[in-house]
Amino acid sequence: MPFVNIKITRDGATAEQKARLIQGVTELLRDVLGKNPATTVVVIEEVDPDNWGIGGETVTERRKRKA
Amino acid sequence: MPFVNIKITRDGATAEQKARLIQGVTELLRDVLGKNPATTVVVIEEVDPDNWGIGGETVTERRKRKA
Amino acid sequence: MPFVNIKITRDGATAEQKARLIQGVTELLRDVLGKNPATTVVVIEEVDPDNWGIGGETVTERRKRKA
Amino acid sequence: MPFVNIKITRDGATAEQKARLIQGVTELLRDVLGKNPATTVVVIEEVDPDNWGIGGETVTERRKRKA
Amino acid sequence: MPFVNIKITRDGATAEQKARLIQGVTELLRDVLGKNPATTVVVIEEVDPDNWGIGGETVTERRKRKA
Amino acid sequence: MPFVNIKITRDGATAEQKARLIQGVTELLRDVLGKNPATTVVVIEEVDPDNWGIGGETVTERRKRKA
Repeated sequence: MPFVNIKITRDGATAEQKARLIQGVTELLRDVLGKNPATTVVVIEEVDPDNWGIGGETVTERRKRKA
Repeated sequence: MPFVNIKITRDGATAEQKARLIQGVTELLRDVLGKNPATTVVVIEEVDPDNWGIGGETVTERRKRKA
Repeated sequence: MPFVNIKITRDGATAEQKARLIQGVTELLRDVLGKNPATTVVVIEEVDPDNWGIGGETVTERRKRKA
Repeated sequence: MPFVNIKITRDGATAEQKARLIQGVTELLRDVLGKNPATTVVVIEEVDPDNWGIGGETVTERRKRKA
Repeated sequence: MPFVNIKITRDGATAEQKARLIQGVTELLRDVLGKNPATTVVVIEEVDPDNWGIGGETVTERRKRKA
Repeated sequence: MPFVNIKITRDGATAEQKARLIQGVTELLRDVLGKNPATTVVVIEEVDPDNWGIGGETVTERRKRKA
């Protein structure tokens, strides 16, 4: 019955990678806490780099600065 | 003053259906807890079936398998 | 498969009221969007009035001011 | 290490405005609580006015009614 | 830079189990998407069974019924 | 109408500090985006250091290691 929300920047994660994340988190919750995979929900949110900030700046700015 | 966040898979919910959800949840909070509708906020998030997992697989895979 | 998160101030909602909220939201999603109740998850979070702000002040302050 | 999630209606906020929000929230957490900006994460979500409800109606309806 | 929020019912997960969850999710994001562990944040929320609903009823009711 | 959720570790933030955070974020949204303070909601969540992970370890472990 766990609910997991994963937020990442939108950077071209493939459907196959997202499927692996979902499978991996579901197995982890089963292995560590005995949670039932059938009712484990995982939602991935992909966020525009303009809308993600760390260190007080957007990821867009940070990447420009580091390029 | 309640805040409600509804996450569903993106499957063509219409503007009218979303309006009914918002109205229904707001009335429920008024009826059950006496919450003021004027400051009740409801946000609906529609999530790509590739980004929603249940039972360790994405909804996309699950639907293919069941088709 | 929907996931609903309801945030309210912690003001003594009873177990019975919370059960009614959960039932009501689940039925609403079934009636409006045809969502399966068996996999509809609803999580209620009760938040201290010191930690909830509206209009730029905490609910604690607002209530004092209005008392 | 704080995590801040800002949800607003999608109404044409510019990259520059979003950068100012991220910078401002990060500085606020440093000034008020001494939080380290390097590990402060801010995520902005822009929500369609059809998917945002207040007062029991969507923002789309509310704006039409008030126009 | 990912942010992960794990919601589970409050059922006595130990500090050691929570540490394993945090480590496991962080490694998964590194292995699948190449995300930097140093800025991966994981927040676990433990929710009272009275406040968690599935199938239209609270977990508290569901357990009583199944006992 | 914005909704802001601030998650921090539970480390003794005072009611006065939380009130300043709420006021500051609300003013920022008014100044940068013209958002109406009357309907701006801010919710602060304080999370146990055992339940917060960064760099693959809990904050509890990290602090012990650095002490």
